[in-house]
Amino acid sequence: MSTDEVTLDDLPLREDLRGRTPYGAPQLDVAVRLNTNENPYPPPVELSADVAAAVERTAGQLHRYPDRDATALREQLAGYLNAVTSSALTAGHVWAANGSNEVLQQVLQAFGGPGRSALGFVPSYSMHPIIAAGTRTEWHAEQRRADFSLDIDAAVAAVLRLRPDVVFVTSPNNPTGGSASLAELRALLDAAPAIVVVDEAYAEFSEQPSSIELLDEYPGKLIVSRTMSKAFAFAGGRLGYLAAAPAMVDALQLVRLPYHLSVLTQAAARAALEHGQRTLASVATIVGERKRVSATLAEMGFHVVPSDANFVLFGQFADAHRVWTSYLDNGVLIRDVGIDGYLRVTIGTPEENDAFLAASKEVASGPDR
Amino acid sequence: MSTDEVTLDDLPLREDLRGRTPYGAPQLDVAVRLNTNENPYPPPVELSADVAAAVERTAGQLHRYPDRDATALREQLAGYLNAVTSSALTAGHVWAANGSNEVLQQVLQAFGGPGRSALGFVPSYSMHPIIAAGTRTEWHAEQRRADFSLDIDAAVAAVLRLRPDVVFVTSPNNPTGGSASLAELRALLDAAPAIVVVDEAYAEFSEQPSSIELLDEYPGKLIVSRTMSKAFAFAGGRLGYLAAAPAMVDALQLVRLPYHLSVLTQAAARAALEHGQRTLASVATIVGERKRVSATLAEMGFHVVPSDANFVLFGQFADAHRVWTSYLDNGVLIRDVGIDGYLRVTIGTPEENDAFLAASKEVASGPDR
Repeated sequence: MSTDEVTLDDLPLREDLRGRTPYGAPQLDVAVRLNTNENPYPPPVELSADVAAAVERTAGQLHRYPDRDATALREQLAGYLNAVTSSALTAGHVWAANGSNEVLQQVLQAFGGPGRSALGFVPSYSMHPIIAAGTRTEWHAEQRRADFSLDIDAAVAAVLRLRPDVVFVTSPNNPTGGSASLAELRALLDAAPAIVVVDEAYAEFSEQPSSIELLDEYPGKLIVSRTMSKAFAFAGGRLGYLAAAPAMVDALQLVRLPYHLSVLTQAAARAALEHGQRTLASVATIVGERKRVSATLAEMGFHVVPSDANFVLFGQFADAHRVWTSYLDNGVLIRDVGIDGYLRVTIGTPEENDAFLAASKEVASGPDR
Repeated sequence: MSTDEVTLDDLPLREDLRGRTPYGAPQLDVAVRLNTNENPYPPPVELSADVAAAVERTAGQLHRYPDRDATALREQLAGYLNAVTSSALTAGHVWAANGSNEVLQQVLQAFGGPGRSALGFVPSYSMHPIIAAGTRTEWHAEQRRADFSLDIDAAVAAVLRLRPDVVFVTSPNNPTGGSASLAELRALLDAAPAIVVVDEAYAEFSEQPSSIELLDEYPGKLIVSRTMSKAFAFAGGRLGYLAAAPAMVDALQLVRLPYHLSVLTQAAARAALEHGQRTLASVATIVGERKRVSATLAEMGFHVVPSDANFVLFGQFADAHRVWTSYLDNGVLIRDVGIDGYLRVTIGTPEENDAFLAASKEVASGPDR
């Protein structure tokens, strides 16, 4: 038997992984890609140049391991968060990893795992249950309302009933778009017996205040996760981070793999943060476009779920997957997130949104409505 | 209670993590750093320039997620392995992640985990049991001989007795330096009921053939892990990889976090591989220096464990930690790896090795011998 003849079934794979398929949206070569909630605006030329310059400066030290604690980067991230909230965070309050997925995996390695459980309010970010499975944390899902808003009384009741070790709240929620208020988060934090992770991947697009404002009230419970993938237009750089009490960061250092953040990642992320103000200027444009796309879709007769993020969930379709294919045939890649009757579109540039809306017009008059 | 007042004891940390400290050698600002088995030679200027150029070319796409499968990089890694072994690997036989620690973590997520076990032959790479703990894989340790060589009969007996789901063999072994022969690895593979990981982080420094030569004989069992941190002088770039049957790679894709390798990592590693021949030229120099350092230490009366890698374990000391401090006082940072009576020194540049040997002379005549 050669290496090519062995199949997955021949391998001593864990039973719970059998039959699964790898996570990930199709990466298709389509002109208009509005499927993974990326920022449509490339980094400004000066940023690319600065990232390259930062990398060249550090490349001479590539033979050396990176700063294991990424202290300078964490200090800069704290500075950014302090600028956009009323907090006074230090590097000790911030932790960073290769994407917020790795941050969340570390959180579940420290506070979840075998014999422990996590709870999410679904539909929500589909990586949460996958990371729970990857860390062997029992996963509980409580449904949102039919309009995808968070039923806070039901959520609190579920927390009190299930007593999960980790509660995930995504705000704004992906893929549905709505945010939780601070009052709602307080109710969840009051009820939670242990950790509450507020996943704020899309916070910069939201009109709600950040849950970072609650850290001083709930220092032993609250973890706020963030990413540079969306507003910072840094999806390719893979930099996720969190804000929490310094003891939480100490806990994550017990499970992180040493030297997990390369010198390149640390240098590039720092350069990107230095250009933050310029990059974040795209947020207002994207929010304006979100309003235009939402209004136009509604005018066409679609049901549009109110969004506080850089994407919009819309429907309803008898066969969402067939409609997804119609968009693809029109050269527009959006996302079938597996919610019956709905599709998700990322807000792109005005031109990309025009292409999406033109395709939507086709769909609106087509046989699948 | 503010965020700064919460302590680790106040948090709902997993019980098995309580009392632990984060892994990692002290990162001290010392002139001669011979403690983490880094390559002492900085990347050539052309490589730094090419890495920066590759990053600048890709930086314009930082707002987009990276190629989730890192296919081009994996193809190049396969090409490198084919050039140095008699194998004919493709991208499908290779998997890569942020350092070999992440590769090994994924291996244990797929094939280890709760209810499963892993076995190592100690003293060996201390991250193996830590990653086992992080993935809740039960860890068994079988002792090497008193001279740190692998007792293959005892090793096979341990495999037959314990029937571990994953066997780790480090060859050359870190921190002791000896390699396993293909005949010894065959004996382990024949006995093993499931996965055998041969950790070849230091393979380029070894005179033994790579276990990659055994992949066709044991496609359903063997995984060979590698890193660009050592011979490739790319520790700061964080690129670990493995060679195995394509079905093994399929298995790892079920547990990997999506988009785990940034565009920067992929671009920089590819640039570094293109300069491989030049970088790897340092290997012969380092091996020559290893022989000189070993011989000189032996002449001074130290016991030197024969090494096939870029480091040497030597002793014996009544109090190894006190001797480690003496070296530090002499401006030389080496590693106390926790083996009673021994210390490990990374082979540096000739000048660094001279500084180390000068300090060793002090130590040899000092009160701690």
